[in-house]
Amino acid sequence: MKIGIIAPEEKVESWVSTFNEYDSNINVSIYPDIDYDDVECICLWKQPKNLLNKFKKLKLIHSMGAGVDHIINDSSYPKGIPICRISDEMLSFSMTNYIITAILFHHRRILKYQNDKVEKVWDQNTHPEILPINIGILGYGALGSDAADKLNYMGFNVVGYSLNKKENTNIKIYHGTELDIFLSKINILVCTVPYTNKTHHLLNDKLFKKVQKGTYLINVSRGKVQNESHIIEYIDNGTLSGAFLDVFEKEPLPKSSEIWNHKKIQITPHNASITNESAAVPQIIENYKRVISGKNLINQVDLNNEY
Amino acid sequence: MKIGIIAPEEKVESWVSTFNEYDSNINVSIYPDIDYDDVECICLWKQPKNLLNKFKKLKLIHSMGAGVDHIINDSSYPKGIPICRISDEMLSFSMTNYIITAILFHHRRILKYQNDKVEKVWDQNTHPEILPINIGILGYGALGSDAADKLNYMGFNVVGYSLNKKENTNIKIYHGTELDIFLSKINILVCTVPYTNKTHHLLNDKLFKKVQKGTYLINVSRGKVQNESHIIEYIDNGTLSGAFLDVFEKEPLPKSSEIWNHKKIQITPHNASITNESAAVPQIIENYKRVISGKNLINQVDLNNEY
Repeated sequence: MKIGIIAPEEKVESWVSTFNEYDSNINVSIYPDIDYDDVECICLWKQPKNLLNKFKKLKLIHSMGAGVDHIINDSSYPKGIPICRISDEMLSFSMTNYIITAILFHHRRILKYQNDKVEKVWDQNTHPEILPINIGILGYGALGSDAADKLNYMGFNVVGYSLNKKENTNIKIYHGTELDIFLSKINILVCTVPYTNKTHHLLNDKLFKKVQKGTYLINVSRGKVQNESHIIEYIDNGTLSGAFLDVFEKEPLPKSSEIWNHKKIQITPHNASITNESAAVPQIIENYKRVISGKNLINQVDLNNEY
Repeated sequence: MKIGIIAPEEKVESWVSTFNEYDSNINVSIYPDIDYDDVECICLWKQPKNLLNKFKKLKLIHSMGAGVDHIINDSSYPKGIPICRISDEMLSFSMTNYIITAILFHHRRILKYQNDKVEKVWDQNTHPEILPINIGILGYGALGSDAADKLNYMGFNVVGYSLNKKENTNIKIYHGTELDIFLSKINILVCTVPYTNKTHHLLNDKLFKKVQKGTYLINVSRGKVQNESHIIEYIDNGTLSGAFLDVFEKEPLPKSSEIWNHKKIQITPHNASITNESAAVPQIIENYKRVISGKNLINQVDLNNEY
């Protein structure tokens, strides 16, 4: 079993050791010292472009995370080779906690109380919660639906939006052409969509013109889903009350970005949820075994949907 | 039906209108213009002391919130008159959200990312979550158990401690003499105990000597449950990693308090959860009807336990 890893920005030692703990016969080579002639399964994260068609025996391409846009947008992707992604409970746990953190940071007015502390202000007249709070999950996949379920359990009003029709007995999920209705129902917008042709710059002025005044924006998907100059414009004109962003059009966020100094934008360095190799490695091994024996794969990407 | 309200620090107009919406025959008088000769039920919040034994027809004393220490510690309390408190789903909703906010504020390193933003630092090397995270709920009543249940649903490890034995199939609840074991299992301590003789200054150096290094303290109960100089001492000596406090030994927190300037302490002005009169008023009316007809009361205080 020969596996190659191409993830030059990641520390991959723990991935190698995790593969070897599962099966000491697995041979793992790492880019740039990778065996293009023999590797059958490659694991990718932010790989350099134009390498994928160099592999001679390739049977499976595995993303090392939940996103696959780095693979689909690589023009060297050899058509017909299946692409899979990681679905990880720990990934959902962390992502949902991040989303709840961002929601509660807004809802419980943390910034106000931090400022009051600096000013030694004891204010019992302002309601400590920003109400009403109607949360919209834009993108209702594994991560979005986990957050929706837990927020619903906590007692919040939650609705979802998905491109394709989905059902949930507890949560109303809008779909297709119902995006405008969805946006009119909410005042916290949580974006968990995959990055595809259809979602490029989805969070832009056209969308912000349709939200309720004071809507708070949380983006944990991909930076290129957002138009940052539009976000700043719509916070400054009062349409959006603020934003909590984990992802950016360019990462690391350039020092020149206005976002660093913007008081109504909270940021984290694209680490809302980190793939946990002890969850990922067994999924990759399982899919490798399945591809060899011609079985259906787990979490295979539908290239029509791009996720 | 004659009800009196003694809550000089509160705006009680909405309580009066809520009583009248339920029953226009209810006669509500408000301290200081209160009818000591005829009132049968008094509703109290931070009442001036030494008034309670002036009522001639008193049958029921109702706290306007979840706490009753302001009544039990009033030496004019006429023995034998039942005391009830409010139990309110909205109170639990808000309190649990506050507790989750405080936990996630710590767990997701919000302070670090706020500081990084000021310094324009993009740090992907620090793990974005403080692990492990084992949450202990000290005081397992209506509020503590609601928080424990929701944190458990979110996927966190939660244990509880209660003075008296309690059972929960999902959550291990220590009790009685097991406080030290409970403290050794956790690294986030959430205090939701009532204020009683037994809990006065419970959060002091004796307790902090028994916690794991790095334990984060959250207090949403009563200020006099904590010794603030000990909290500061045990944060500064590294035992506690910080604190998120809604309550203080003296409220409003005096301008002279070191807490205002302490970087590792977050504060809010005793408003984690605000009693919602639309939930409280029907409970008070129901208990008034029950006391008149000799039925068991809802949320009656056990004077032996003081809550």
